[in-house]
Amino acid sequence: MFVLGVDPGLSRCGYGAVAGRGPGRGAHAVAAGVLTTPTQDPVPLRLATLRAELDALIAELAPDVVVVERVLFQTNARTAMAVGQASGIALLTAIERGCTVVEYSANEVKQAITGYGGATKAQVQQMVAELLDLSMPPRPADAADALGLALTHLFAAPLAGAVAHALGATR
Amino acid sequence: MFVLGVDPGLSRCGYGAVAGRGPGRGAHAVAAGVLTTPTQDPVPLRLATLRAELDALIAELAPDVVVVERVLFQTNARTAMAVGQASGIALLTAIERGCTVVEYSANEVKQAITGYGGATKAQVQQMVAELLDLSMPPRPADAADALGLALTHLFAAPLAGAVAHALGATR
Repeated sequence: MFVLGVDPGLSRCGYGAVAGRGPGRGAHAVAAGVLTTPTQDPVPLRLATLRAELDALIAELAPDVVVVERVLFQTNARTAMAVGQASGIALLTAIERGCTVVEYSANEVKQAITGYGGATKAQVQQMVAELLDLSMPPRPADAADALGLALTHLFAAPLAGAVAHALGATR
Repeated sequence: MFVLGVDPGLSRCGYGAVAGRGPGRGAHAVAAGVLTTPTQDPVPLRLATLRAELDALIAELAPDVVVVERVLFQTNARTAMAVGQASGIALLTAIERGCTVVEYSANEVKQAITGYGGATKAQVQQMVAELLDLSMPPRPADAADALGLALTHLFAAPLAGAVAHALGATR
């Protein structure tokens, strides 16, 4: 399975692509980085820039699944709006490219990657590095967070499949 | 000038198109209504549905300007995310269709339409009806709100132009 994680943001949008079948089953990073939009541009133009860059990225990588961080709460209302707008663009672009689209919250990522929902960001990033057999946590942090999202789906998808099978569900 | 107002939302997205040159200068409503997406659908699919409907609407109406409500604060974080995602889709679709895109907050609309930033929603809707020479406030309320956004730009644009002219600015 080839999974692209997206940590949505208008100023900085992290992405990280991981291929493999799960923990200890050859999961490896294929690409990681950050998309940025010029802060001096008007918001609609910045959204169009983000859309074009994400669309090109998804077209080039052709992931099976795109995982977007589900943002549940932001204390800063202005930031929340920008993150909401960017996540809308990411979800739209992924589904229009025909990818399966999944959302996980930051706490779900912490739980999946470290087994502990109260883990720090640094602990998650260190574990992402270990799981991907990297010598140090990927930089910048947005890219590491996106790789963590992708890994979370690699871990969760087989479980979800097993549960569906056990319940006799058909997909 | 032909202006389309959009009151963004994922469950209900109001729209209202107004043509004219300003208050008392033949401003009239051309279209108004609400776009909805099925609440049982996954969010990415609902965003794609909203995107397709807004895109068709803008293509059909061909407004010069699209005005999207700028949402500054929401007490409900889950609603804030959905509104942020929907506003991102609206801003993106408008700019990709080549429209000028403008944002006003609800308070800016109240001030422009009633001259009083503390006006109630009902007062704004009543005034929207009077300005558009309608016998009663447009229904549903989302459509009236969107017409108010469009009217706000009709009123504000000549002022902004006059200020720019007085300052010797060029556009």
